[in-house]
Amino acid sequence: MILINGESKNHIEISDRGFQYGDGLFETIEVRDGQAVFLERHLERLNSGCQRLHIPFLDTELLRCEAGRLCREWTRGQHSFRAVLKIIVTRGSGGRGYRQPDTIQPTRVLSLHPYPDYPQIYSEQGIVARICTSRLGLNPSLAGIKHLNRLEQVMARAEWNDSSIQEGLMLDFDEHVIEGTMTNLFYIKNNNLYTAILTQTGVAGIMRGVIMMLAADHGLSVVEHTFTKNQLLSADEVFVCNSIIGIWPVKQIERTYFSVGPVTRNIQIQLDRFINMELNNEQ
Amino acid sequence: MILINGESKNHIEISDRGFQYGDGLFETIEVRDGQAVFLERHLERLNSGCQRLHIPFLDTELLRCEAGRLCREWTRGQHSFRAVLKIIVTRGSGGRGYRQPDTIQPTRVLSLHPYPDYPQIYSEQGIVARICTSRLGLNPSLAGIKHLNRLEQVMARAEWNDSSIQEGLMLDFDEHVIEGTMTNLFYIKNNNLYTAILTQTGVAGIMRGVIMMLAADHGLSVVEHTFTKNQLLSADEVFVCNSIIGIWPVKQIERTYFSVGPVTRNIQIQLDRFINMELNNEQ
Repeated sequence: MILINGESKNHIEISDRGFQYGDGLFETIEVRDGQAVFLERHLERLNSGCQRLHIPFLDTELLRCEAGRLCREWTRGQHSFRAVLKIIVTRGSGGRGYRQPDTIQPTRVLSLHPYPDYPQIYSEQGIVARICTSRLGLNPSLAGIKHLNRLEQVMARAEWNDSSIQEGLMLDFDEHVIEGTMTNLFYIKNNNLYTAILTQTGVAGIMRGVIMMLAADHGLSVVEHTFTKNQLLSADEVFVCNSIIGIWPVKQIERTYFSVGPVTRNIQIQLDRFINMELNNEQ
Repeated sequence: MILINGESKNHIEISDRGFQYGDGLFETIEVRDGQAVFLERHLERLNSGCQRLHIPFLDTELLRCEAGRLCREWTRGQHSFRAVLKIIVTRGSGGRGYRQPDTIQPTRVLSLHPYPDYPQIYSEQGIVARICTSRLGLNPSLAGIKHLNRLEQVMARAEWNDSSIQEGLMLDFDEHVIEGTMTNLFYIKNNNLYTAILTQTGVAGIMRGVIMMLAADHGLSVVEHTFTKNQLLSADEVFVCNSIIGIWPVKQIERTYFSVGPVTRNIQIQLDRFINMELNNEQ
């Protein structure tokens, strides 16, 4: 189920700058029982990404309608309860070389995918993570944006093929731990919640933002800072998150073991409640 | 005129990883009178790029045949003498998320485009360049490769719209001058030829390699090193190059003026001779 600029098809012109240069953005959204979770937050981030890349933003109402149309069709199709909605926005076709065309007509692609079959045990008992040797390059002008230039993540994810490892953690070239290949990373130390500053590199995930907000609302100190692998390994608790998996506690990073602690459990509970509340409000 | 995996069409599946993540490579090749200039060098670089990205390389003979087929059709079509051949190779479709599929079936896209209408005067009297504020991120594992993650160049090229400026020069985050948005950069000082080391960032252009070889063959010292904007501005001569434009002397960078000097002129002559010799050999 794919809509490209409102039409049901599954091909894109090769002249599209998304294909030529990775000149665009994307969002990956959980769909639960026909509803796109945190859709407004995702559309807001898409808008701010477009502003940073100077892509004229698409009609938000149109995106909302098309997302709703896909989700309703999915539900009617007697599919499973959950799915993944991906939205890609590119600078559209044309422009000789890197120079953008004088008139930009962005391309929007909305597609629905089966929910990945991650075992429930990952959320409950935690996952094993490794440290990737592939590093994240530094570039403040692109940092935080969920853009389509994702070779660094592809190269990092290609480092392992061992199905007992669920995520790879990535450092930047200054030896700071930033995030997972597909997740943001948090750790807890002395009851404070820490995560990386994303002004030089990384993707500022929607789930990361929600967790920071919920944690602060529930009295935790939330600190964005730069930290090393050793600081991470001395944490009390560690977890990763994204919009599809929610929160996965990390029980092991290489040879260091962590317990799935009370702070992570509490944030998981708050997050579940918050998502259910949001979904009920929208119904 | 486009061939996608050997078929004449102009659309690509949206599941192609080139579109999803910029997970691929490209080559831009001059076509003169039906012949692709330096085709073997381009195919060799494509091969080495595929190796670095762990994309199984396509059949070189197949690419050679398809390039020949496009070029012959172009010539038969009574088009102009020159054209541009673009080859894109991606990791193909599929793979959930960043993880690559177990079996990779690369996509190859060959397309022919009109030769850009750059005035002859650029080669003869030189161009005006500016210094971009957009910077090149550092990442040794991707440095030198002509991959599809080109947002940095897109952002840099979007910095100016003044048609009297033909190229923007880009620095990395260590304040080293690296290259132009679409060109490699050389400068001459005391009869030595200098260009940036491309082990941390940048694209190692085919034309750059040819020029380094020709200059060394003609007795010039060729030095790859790191240099600052001030070192560049104190040069005797400056030029930029790529596979389509050949060599453009730089006559002005912001408020600093350069003459089109004898070393640049000599390399232009050697390059012309070398290209003609290569094309005659292949006929």
